[in-house]
Amino acid sequence: MGGIGKYIYRVEPRDVDFTRQVTLMAVGDNILHAAGEDADRNGFGLRVLSANNASWVLSRFAVEMERRPVQYEKLCVETWVGEVSRLMTTRNFRVSDENGKQIGAAVSYWAMIDLTSRQPLDLRSNPEYLKAVYEEPSPIEKPGRIARVNPVRIEPHRVVYSDVDFNRHANSMKYLEWMVDMLPVEWHTERACRRYTLNFMHEARYGDQLEVCFEDATASLFEIRNTEGVALCRASLEWK
Amino acid sequence: MGGIGKYIYRVEPRDVDFTRQVTLMAVGDNILHAAGEDADRNGFGLRVLSANNASWVLSRFAVEMERRPVQYEKLCVETWVGEVSRLMTTRNFRVSDENGKQIGAAVSYWAMIDLTSRQPLDLRSNPEYLKAVYEEPSPIEKPGRIARVNPVRIEPHRVVYSDVDFNRHANSMKYLEWMVDMLPVEWHTERACRRYTLNFMHEARYGDQLEVCFEDATASLFEIRNTEGVALCRASLEWK
Repeated sequence: MGGIGKYIYRVEPRDVDFTRQVTLMAVGDNILHAAGEDADRNGFGLRVLSANNASWVLSRFAVEMERRPVQYEKLCVETWVGEVSRLMTTRNFRVSDENGKQIGAAVSYWAMIDLTSRQPLDLRSNPEYLKAVYEEPSPIEKPGRIARVNPVRIEPHRVVYSDVDFNRHANSMKYLEWMVDMLPVEWHTERACRRYTLNFMHEARYGDQLEVCFEDATASLFEIRNTEGVALCRASLEWK
Repeated sequence: MGGIGKYIYRVEPRDVDFTRQVTLMAVGDNILHAAGEDADRNGFGLRVLSANNASWVLSRFAVEMERRPVQYEKLCVETWVGEVSRLMTTRNFRVSDENGKQIGAAVSYWAMIDLTSRQPLDLRSNPEYLKAVYEEPSPIEKPGRIARVNPVRIEPHRVVYSDVDFNRHANSMKYLEWMVDMLPVEWHTERACRRYTLNFMHEARYGDQLEVCFEDATASLFEIRNTEGVALCRASLEWK
């Protein structure tokens, strides 16, 4: 247990866009799936936590990709637990192609919450979790805090049935999907997203009426707000 | 080759809704994925067809489920080629759970088209395809033609980046998603969809402005129309 876990994925037809390359959401989904599998392997997966009325909450996520693999390519996601502080832990990832060449990496921050109080639990009081820590630095810059966005364009989005996951809130990759759907479609052929960073601040729930705000700065900046103007999620997409 | 192909899936966290049961879309996606794998196995998969400037087009699809399996359950999809007429072929499916108990079945109609002319090709002139036919009847009633819908509710939908697949049109399961997202959310806990039938009539492309029309009859009836009022897709969802 502990150490580096290794998980293989294949880019399926449903994971690709019209360029036949894997979408940013599907890459993120594979990486987060590997996180779930590796937590399971180490005895602190969602099923064990849920029996203890606890759950993992994704707080920040950064993904870098040199290229987007195409349909039917295999990906290998390696993952390990990095630092652990009282209320937050880092999980790191490396993504390689079938030839073993590294083509991407990611860093995620997680909190463990009590499902009744919704308050974070002290990770350092969990000896199982501390045992899983692996001494290898994060492969890319950690996900920083994204500042408030000054939108040039705003699209409304009501949270629908298919947005909501087993946690009864909008799935992390759905926020990214709403954002990416606002970009000019030619960007997906003419540009390549070098890095994306997501900050998850508050949950979006079924029926919530949201605004997806876009600022076209050096990076593409996004903010998802509720009707009170509270930011639920922010993102920065950097292009090559 | 030929005969029955068998494909195993696991219900992943991204496949379930807030009830932790697999969505109707994810079941359909697994079934259609098995169709793709089995076509590959028999030498008439999309990659071979695409090298010949041809492709499969899904025309009708019916799925019946006794129950919706939950997160982490394994599913086995068995599939075989049924009848072949000049312009249309049937592919059949059985879905079983981990204990080998049959919990669902499906029937799909497909045409093979030339990608330049968009015209259907004569399936009976393809000896490879005829060899794959397996003499076992369809496990459920075939997908019938759904009549024009008289909507009680209409929701607009613009086709966005994430709706569009490698074929550059909206993915089949996306039509179903837009429909299911219009249903009262309690239906997903209080009712169970016994059978759904889809008719695919015309493609929806990126940027198309559509109307999703809902008629609450004995079954839930849906029609997706473009701005000219042309029906692109119709569906019927029957409930227990």
